[in-house]
Amino acid sequence: MFEHLPASVKVVEVGPRDGLQNEPEHVSTANKVKLIYALAEAGISHIEVSSFVSPKWIPQLADAMEVATALHPPHLSDSVTTSALVPNIKGYERFKESGLHQPAFFMSATESHSKKNINKSVDEAIDALKEVLAAAKGDGYKVRCYLSVVFECPYEGSVSPDQVLRVTEKLVKLGVDEISLGDTIGAATPNQVIAIVNRVKEHIAVEKLALHFHDTRGTALANVVAGLEAGVTIFDASLGGMGGCPYAPGAAGNLATEDLVYMLHGLGVKTGIDLDKLVDAGALAQQILGKELPGRYLKASLAKRAKECAA
Amino acid sequence: MFEHLPASVKVVEVGPRDGLQNEPEHVSTANKVKLIYALAEAGISHIEVSSFVSPKWIPQLADAMEVATALHPPHLSDSVTTSALVPNIKGYERFKESGLHQPAFFMSATESHSKKNINKSVDEAIDALKEVLAAAKGDGYKVRCYLSVVFECPYEGSVSPDQVLRVTEKLVKLGVDEISLGDTIGAATPNQVIAIVNRVKEHIAVEKLALHFHDTRGTALANVVAGLEAGVTIFDASLGGMGGCPYAPGAAGNLATEDLVYMLHGLGVKTGIDLDKLVDAGALAQQILGKELPGRYLKASLAKRAKECAA
Repeated sequence: MFEHLPASVKVVEVGPRDGLQNEPEHVSTANKVKLIYALAEAGISHIEVSSFVSPKWIPQLADAMEVATALHPPHLSDSVTTSALVPNIKGYERFKESGLHQPAFFMSATESHSKKNINKSVDEAIDALKEVLAAAKGDGYKVRCYLSVVFECPYEGSVSPDQVLRVTEKLVKLGVDEISLGDTIGAATPNQVIAIVNRVKEHIAVEKLALHFHDTRGTALANVVAGLEAGVTIFDASLGGMGGCPYAPGAAGNLATEDLVYMLHGLGVKTGIDLDKLVDAGALAQQILGKELPGRYLKASLAKRAKECAA
Repeated sequence: MFEHLPASVKVVEVGPRDGLQNEPEHVSTANKVKLIYALAEAGISHIEVSSFVSPKWIPQLADAMEVATALHPPHLSDSVTTSALVPNIKGYERFKESGLHQPAFFMSATESHSKKNINKSVDEAIDALKEVLAAAKGDGYKVRCYLSVVFECPYEGSVSPDQVLRVTEKLVKLGVDEISLGDTIGAATPNQVIAIVNRVKEHIAVEKLALHFHDTRGTALANVVAGLEAGVTIFDASLGGMGGCPYAPGAAGNLATEDLVYMLHGLGVKTGIDLDKLVDAGALAQQILGKELPGRYLKASLAKRAKECAA
């Protein structure tokens, strides 16, 4: 163990998109932009800033174009890569207009989840992505794809490594540059992570894989350790753990970026992120949302700061 | 990784003692006993039920003798080992009267923490334990000792593996059967766990070591994975994460037993614990304390149950 730790990893901040789309509170465009700047200020190099999914589905992110406009250079540092979720060719046209750096697509790893979610089989979902992926590649974009329920599916239980390999291989053949393997319901345990990453990397360069954990059952960082050991160097996380768990109100959802960065730094793995400034961003997020977020490092740090201020 | 997973581990439930001593709410003796029965019903085989530390220090556990009396066989299953915290020979005399199975002592791994906590150096603290340890061993008890701030000390920072080895060796020489290595402030990361356990086990049988993690920064289960890999098979945890963090109000303290058991079962490691019944016990704890506990699996499970009930 810990013989394979990388020198550094890329942290992909998904809070402004994956986080806010699952928060019931209304957040103004100005506050979203403020949050994204605070994240950039903390040294986050990749931020998913919004979504071009129909506002009918995700009204929280209906202002994607306004957010993007506010971030246009020279406003946001050139060192930050911005991405947005894109569901289809129509969303992709809006994405292109937005001037953001990378489109991110999504689909499910299992038949049942795919059917329930978008009423398409896995192969139909891949077919549906073909046109838009070809367009994005033709336009020279680096493309990310989120794969949902990679480890545990709420309908099918544990997902077989072969199934994940089958889907990821097809996506890579269509030109996807980075596949984010998601533990959508936050039920994975470390051995599943090892088994699936090891199987997938038999056929796909591990550099193309990201891991996206939810901390619903407290296992997210244990799964990160497993992912590091398996050779993954890209991890998604959400500031303060924004995003909750849509299936379980009150429960934790996305892995909190601060918790991830704290552990990585403790392991001697570089992220380029300033943890104190990340806590500042987390405090801002709590202020904007008007509530406490589930991130543990954030809570502990803010409590400590309050104590130091009081002392 | 995961080449050294044990077939089973012992989970030591510290909630009724370490948890409740750090909760501000008053809990009646009857409710404490109810909680301990619920834990036993879930299959927990070792429960630390109270403390014989002076009620002046820990008024929450002033009813240790009453709790112990209510648990006397045949009331509590014979398969459950009960322990209580014991600070000195006076506390030990009360412990002996109580009929509980194991006394548990405590001290710090670092000079600064020891000085601040009990106004003794580490060697003075060990000297102070000699008499009571000799008495307990003479009376035929199996003895546990909690070692605080084993990984990170709030005053000294990272603790050296040699320092931990030095203290644990002395304790073992005095007859301590089990040493619980505590991450008191919840700041350890997995590499520290590996480094310290590996160093200590060069001279001490790993079967004598337990690990006691706090989830203050979300790293507890990642540290458990590290501990398992290093060969440890005893882990402390607290129902629902009871206990908070005394240094940071609102922040998480003890690792939640349900989170631990969920991950262990996911890894195929047996605990003998029924996770559903453990959630029942957690729900009871929340009801008794009149508040939500920080444990993540508990929160997710109760939210899911509520949804199923509503559906």
